Amino acid sequence: MSFDTIIQRLFLEIKKIEDTGEIASYIPELQNIDTNKFGIYIASTNNSNYGVGDYAEKFSIQSISKVLSLSLAYNILGETIWNRLGVEPSGTSYNSLIQLETDKGIPRNPFINAGAIVIADILLSKLKYPKEDFLSFIRNLSGSEKINYSSKIATSEKSVGYRNIALCNFIKSFNNIQNAPSEVLDFYFDICSLEMSAKELSNTFLFLANKGINPHTNNQVLTQSQSKRINALMQTCGFYDESGEFAFKVGLPGKSGVGGGIVAVHPGHYAITVWSPKLNKKGNSFKGIQFLEKFTTASKLSIF
Amino acid sequence: MSFDTIIQRLFLEIKKIEDTGEIASYIPELQNIDTNKFGIYIASTNNSNYGVGDYAEKFSIQSISKVLSLSLAYNILGETIWNRLGVEPSGTSYNSLIQLETDKGIPRNPFINAGAIVIADILLSKLKYPKEDFLSFIRNLSGSEKINYSSKIATSEKSVGYRNIALCNFIKSFNNIQNAPSEVLDFYFDICSLEMSAKELSNTFLFLANKGINPHTNNQVLTQSQSKRINALMQTCGFYDESGEFAFKVGLPGKSGVGGGIVAVHPGHYAITVWSPKLNKKGNSFKGIQFLEKFTTASKLSIF
Amino acid sequence: MSFDTIIQRLFLEIKKIEDTGEIASYIPELQNIDTNKFGIYIASTNNSNYGVGDYAEKFSIQSISKVLSLSLAYNILGETIWNRLGVEPSGTSYNSLIQLETDKGIPRNPFINAGAIVIADILLSKLKYPKEDFLSFIRNLSGSEKINYSSKIATSEKSVGYRNIALCNFIKSFNNIQNAPSEVLDFYFDICSLEMSAKELSNTFLFLANKGINPHTNNQVLTQSQSKRINALMQTCGFYDESGEFAFKVGLPGKSGVGGGIVAVHPGHYAITVWSPKLNKKGNSFKGIQFLEKFTTASKLSIF
Amino acid sequence: MSFDTIIQRLFLEIKKIEDTGEIASYIPELQNIDTNKFGIYIASTNNSNYGVGDYAEKFSIQSISKVLSLSLAYNILGETIWNRLGVEPSGTSYNSLIQLETDKGIPRNPFINAGAIVIADILLSKLKYPKEDFLSFIRNLSGSEKINYSSKIATSEKSVGYRNIALCNFIKSFNNIQNAPSEVLDFYFDICSLEMSAKELSNTFLFLANKGINPHTNNQVLTQSQSKRINALMQTCGFYDESGEFAFKVGLPGKSGVGGGIVAVHPGHYAITVWSPKLNKKGNSFKGIQFLEKFTTASKLSIF
Repeated sequence: MSFDTIIQRLFLEIKKIEDTGEIASYIPELQNIDTNKFGIYIASTNNSNYGVGDYAEKFSIQSISKVLSLSLAYNILGETIWNRLGVEPSGTSYNSLIQLETDKGIPRNPFINAGAIVIADILLSKLKYPKEDFLSFIRNLSGSEKINYSSKIATSEKSVGYRNIALCNFIKSFNNIQNAPSEVLDFYFDICSLEMSAKELSNTFLFLANKGINPHTNNQVLTQSQSKRINALMQTCGFYDESGEFAFKVGLPGKSGVGGGIVAVHPGHYAITVWSPKLNKKGNSFKGIQFLEKFTTASKLSIF
Repeated sequence: MSFDTIIQRLFLEIKKIEDTGEIASYIPELQNIDTNKFGIYIASTNNSNYGVGDYAEKFSIQSISKVLSLSLAYNILGETIWNRLGVEPSGTSYNSLIQLETDKGIPRNPFINAGAIVIADILLSKLKYPKEDFLSFIRNLSGSEKINYSSKIATSEKSVGYRNIALCNFIKSFNNIQNAPSEVLDFYFDICSLEMSAKELSNTFLFLANKGINPHTNNQVLTQSQSKRINALMQTCGFYDESGEFAFKVGLPGKSGVGGGIVAVHPGHYAITVWSPKLNKKGNSFKGIQFLEKFTTASKLSIF
Repeated sequence: MSFDTIIQRLFLEIKKIEDTGEIASYIPELQNIDTNKFGIYIASTNNSNYGVGDYAEKFSIQSISKVLSLSLAYNILGETIWNRLGVEPSGTSYNSLIQLETDKGIPRNPFINAGAIVIADILLSKLKYPKEDFLSFIRNLSGSEKINYSSKIATSEKSVGYRNIALCNFIKSFNNIQNAPSEVLDFYFDICSLEMSAKELSNTFLFLANKGINPHTNNQVLTQSQSKRINALMQTCGFYDESGEFAFKVGLPGKSGVGGGIVAVHPGHYAITVWSPKLNKKGNSFKGIQFLEKFTTASKLSIF
Repeated sequence: MSFDTIIQRLFLEIKKIEDTGEIASYIPELQNIDTNKFGIYIASTNNSNYGVGDYAEKFSIQSISKVLSLSLAYNILGETIWNRLGVEPSGTSYNSLIQLETDKGIPRNPFINAGAIVIADILLSKLKYPKEDFLSFIRNLSGSEKINYSSKIATSEKSVGYRNIALCNFIKSFNNIQNAPSEVLDFYFDICSLEMSAKELSNTFLFLANKGINPHTNNQVLTQSQSKRINALMQTCGFYDESGEFAFKVGLPGKSGVGGGIVAVHPGHYAITVWSPKLNKKGNSFKGIQFLEKFTTASKLSIF
């Protein structure tokens, strides 16, 4: 059975099930979303693509951006980047301060907020025009010029971002932030506020299914080894304290965001994005995880 | 380049490097090992096998046994097994009691000691002759009748096993152990004391590279879905608080033991075992991890 | 107003209030107690004593014994005792294992279970006939030959004592227990099983209000400095994670037990014991704390 | 022997001993202090006062101010203040974020930084002119108009106060801060920057040895019960994770600051202040603690 047929069937099946998730409540602006939105897009290394539902509609990618900012910083710094953050799953929720205290300001991995804040600090130091340069990087990867930050979302998140201010200043107290915390956080909130469609996300992430090569341009974005390592990190750390569960049930590297998006990558084959705004108790899209679990079962393809 | 050639070359290369690891010191009997032992064996689903060095010599498999006891218990109980333990990486070392207290006696995953003790308790309740039945299961998987427990090792570990006694009684205080702690621990120490060669281990683990089917007998040991899930668990939890690092550097599901063995599985392709007794600071074979990192790089094969 | 009048009045007042506490459930044998029992006894350094209610009836003193075993061990070892345990409040409940892991087997203080188990280990090493010698020490302090262990209670607690077995073996794994864990625990459970009346307890604790001198025999049990230090320890650590609250509301050093007893000491003046079996959520006698709070308020006497 | 004689003798004795402490390094401006400074002042309820050494010289009182800001807030809010913070010792160092996460933004007690920040927030909401009103309160208590904030110290601390910014924003994320974090912190740093002499401090704290009554004016600053409770809190929580040790060795309620000051109170009798800038490993004045330990031993007076 082709991917298209499986996706179409599962889309209809899961569209119907009761969604017991809840919309993210901590960013005021995110609450205005239509909770019935549901879209899926798959982009394959063999150029066969397919979308269903609201796959062309933009949404707030939030933490999915952490993979992209890491990719750019990894490209710039190479392996020295790991002096400033780890590669181990945290075993705790996304914005915990406990391990930072134990580990003296070194975030466990780049996909918890603490780690992504350190990445934002690195980019701020290394890029000439951080906001513009990062956006160019994304537009280039996605093949779409129509991607932008949402200042509304960034402002909304900043207005209640006390936990992230705490994280950034706490890390700074251990000397693992080089710039002024307020500047780092401004950039961090901008990065999180990117708005992209499922289609754009799958196109953007396809280089991770393609040995680090942008399939649209044939540019080497990351070395093959770096590309593998980012996939490994998504596998072990991509879903906060539901990472083990996701590996267990879905069996693919992936990354979620509180906007309801999930991207999963099957190395060598495809990148797939599901978007459905309501989240389960761990903060990951309820229908998104349901869909991906059934999709890897039905397609009999997983990395394990 | 064929696997044989790569393995042969890397074996010679890594045999020479200085081994900065140290032998496990907490089990008295384990300290008598010759620290220069070094053996590798690969078993493939296409029946091409290869061994080098001390691949036919038996050693104490220790925690590698946790995958095997889980497999048998999973086969018996099915998904209800997850009522008694989780599937998330622990983020802490193998015998920590902290998370058990937070999680009220539910071990984070089956590959930390707490989880493997719960698995031993399950097998004790479900098997008619636990010690004999488990051994039969292993002999059957490996295709070798010459596998046995080491009563010397079990006794040695028991004589200093205060931390494990603490763990078992602590879990019992939360009602997640059904049998008498001393019986559970006796069986647990027996399981850990299994002595197998790299060759026997690779043969035994090959079913996890083969959709759950024992390639020697064509019996379905676990369903394909269960087999995938055990691989996913090894990927996220197989190396204690070095699990992320192993995924990152080696990119394969695997499991280590303090006897110096590491088994890694490439689903669909092969199971490979490396044995070298000296351990790095995280308690995993120093040369074993070096070898596997270079092996997946050289063979350009990993699941990511 | 004299102590007698105040005690009599508050006894009647508090006897009436609704007791929202619950009896300790984890030791089966303790549950057979009549929950309406209520008794108070005060013993003064000026030899004016007074009792009301069930003050002459024996009950299980449980953790109150921790002060007495510490006193004997402190008398034997002097200040070297503090090499094996600390003097800081734990901030957590009485049988937590978390801090033991952080502090590598050194209990925070002698009044959490971990600390009292280390004290039992010390006495086991130092006393010729531990069980008999400790009993003689208590009988001598109290001036009563009719004090005994309850083998029924000790056996009952042992039958469900998994948490304490865990604690003892965990400490042993850090080499801070010298004897066999099962022997240490047998002695520990015996110590906890002592049965004494409020009258006997107040008489026993009076030496701590009397500069370390047994007022019945004029023997120096502890030096004045040691006696002060035990009072200081009761003040900061006597009520687990309700210690601050007790200092705050009652303002006297004291120690509680899950049998529903509380002893408080006013240095220079008196020792007072209240017994009422139902416990508040922190495991301290509900009416006992109510009474002592009102008593120090009414008598306008506290150390602060 | 009179207090004067004892103090004079111990002053000379301790002046000579080698000071293995180190000056607080984290506030740049504090490092300019002459580390040989050593002064003591005792103020008694019976109006017999005595000073020796640098007792009239002002120093940065830092965390000693936490008792004074609590006193004013307690006076304004009464017992409802305890809805926003606890009265239990923390068991951890002064600026830990771990317990805040577990306790969902409720600081363990008012003497760790988190608690004092909540107190600053309360005063900011309740006082018309926070900075001026608080200063008036202190001047009134001390009987000295010459007490002032140090803007140099406040600015210096603010310039490196990342940990406190983290604490304040973290508490705000749990809704336990009402004002803007930057305003709360400005006021908090001002409070900490107060400069007072040992003489002024002892005079100021004397009301806590005097049932809550300002002995200079006969005004009731706090009720007797509130005064006792603040003493109890100083006893259990006044020295971070050395609180138990201080109760154990000195046996008086007290509060230390990283400027090298310690105030101790003997209820009914006196308030005594010692100042010596070098700190032990727990952050409390090395010579200050030595002096107070010997002082209570020599004077044979302690509350225990």
